[in-house]
Amino acid sequence: MDVAVIGGTGEEGFGLTLRLGRAGHHVIIGSRSAEKGAGRAQDARDILGDGASVDGTTNEEAAASAGVVAVTVPFAGQADIYRAIKPTVPAGTIVFDATSPLATAVGGRAWQVVRPWHGSAAEQADAILSQGVRMVGAFHTISGDSLQDLEHPLESDVLVCGDDGEAKAVVGSLIDDIPNLRWVDVGALSMARISETLTALLVSINRTYKVKDSGFRITGREAWGDTRA
Amino acid sequence: MDVAVIGGTGEEGFGLTLRLGRAGHHVIIGSRSAEKGAGRAQDARDILGDGASVDGTTNEEAAASAGVVAVTVPFAGQADIYRAIKPTVPAGTIVFDATSPLATAVGGRAWQVVRPWHGSAAEQADAILSQGVRMVGAFHTISGDSLQDLEHPLESDVLVCGDDGEAKAVVGSLIDDIPNLRWVDVGALSMARISETLTALLVSINRTYKVKDSGFRITGREAWGDTRA
Repeated sequence: MDVAVIGGTGEEGFGLTLRLGRAGHHVIIGSRSAEKGAGRAQDARDILGDGASVDGTTNEEAAASAGVVAVTVPFAGQADIYRAIKPTVPAGTIVFDATSPLATAVGGRAWQVVRPWHGSAAEQADAILSQGVRMVGAFHTISGDSLQDLEHPLESDVLVCGDDGEAKAVVGSLIDDIPNLRWVDVGALSMARISETLTALLVSINRTYKVKDSGFRITGREAWGDTRA
Repeated sequence: MDVAVIGGTGEEGFGLTLRLGRAGHHVIIGSRSAEKGAGRAQDARDILGDGASVDGTTNEEAAASAGVVAVTVPFAGQADIYRAIKPTVPAGTIVFDATSPLATAVGGRAWQVVRPWHGSAAEQADAILSQGVRMVGAFHTISGDSLQDLEHPLESDVLVCGDDGEAKAVVGSLIDDIPNLRWVDVGALSMARISETLTALLVSINRTYKVKDSGFRITGREAWGDTRA
């Protein structure tokens, strides 16, 4: 699958790039600067070795060229990034947003959140990209460090929300391609109001116990994933 | 330990009563009516059998008579209940609040939340009981049904927040007395703004997958519990 990772030069985006590249997907890293995007794509190819298919370009170009667009940017820059890619994202594209509205965006702490006007960062993104993309919220509970450490088994479930079941299943299939990861459909896009804040809860747990890598597993069922299966 | 369960006639409170009674604690069920409290205490003794120590009385009396006071009431009635027990809760009492600000309080859905003025239900409770109780938030991720089903192994971690480490550890020791349960210190009382909303997230997961009993486990460390240990 062709997957664009907007903000793919950041920790979370680069980690996602490595994991999806290793799974055999063609990843297009988007960056504010085409040179920086291309440089990080070279880094990814160096890490992943021959056969990995990773390119880099501008955010705008990356967003135009993939069936799935992942957006992994800090909340402070999220609205601007979406406005930048809005003219180039084709209608019908599956966009998944991994933004957590951490209070660091306004000088606060990473274990605190602010409340976006639209309810959640994912809903804000959906409001900006008003031309009919298929918006999904996902990947708030896996740190960039964990994603980049390819030998490290991932231990946290990915909570996926959205109003389009098929779009959730497509994003879910990417998650399933990453060893050890599971995805749980937590409902409508508005559930991002809760799932996005879990990043801050994990930061607080990490801080309380002086660990780096706390996560969530959802209990109560053997398998999660696509509810339509 | 003497534990008062305010709202102990409700599903969550009665479940907690059974679990703590079975663990050998003396539980005082509080209710708006002393008769109803006494009746449910009899029910609990009938279920738990000889040796269980469960009494029932009014919320006000229950709150006056225990070292730990658990408050398990719907959000719509939470402020009134705290105002009612305020004159009788001794200063220094450890109070743990299990309220989730579900939107059902205002005619909404159980997978949606409202935002209390103070940030969270636990902080609202703390603001009302302004005379120096030691407030803890806990028990938002275990359903009343699961608690009442004594043969059912509990699979969810209890997220505990508060500004008083010793109070959290005391509540944590009660949690540790319930088979299979673990507690995770998620930080300051204000973290209830996130942890309380997880009830709604679990309701949404239950609804999406048609299950009754989804829960959370925190990953990343073998043992959680008291950070001071």
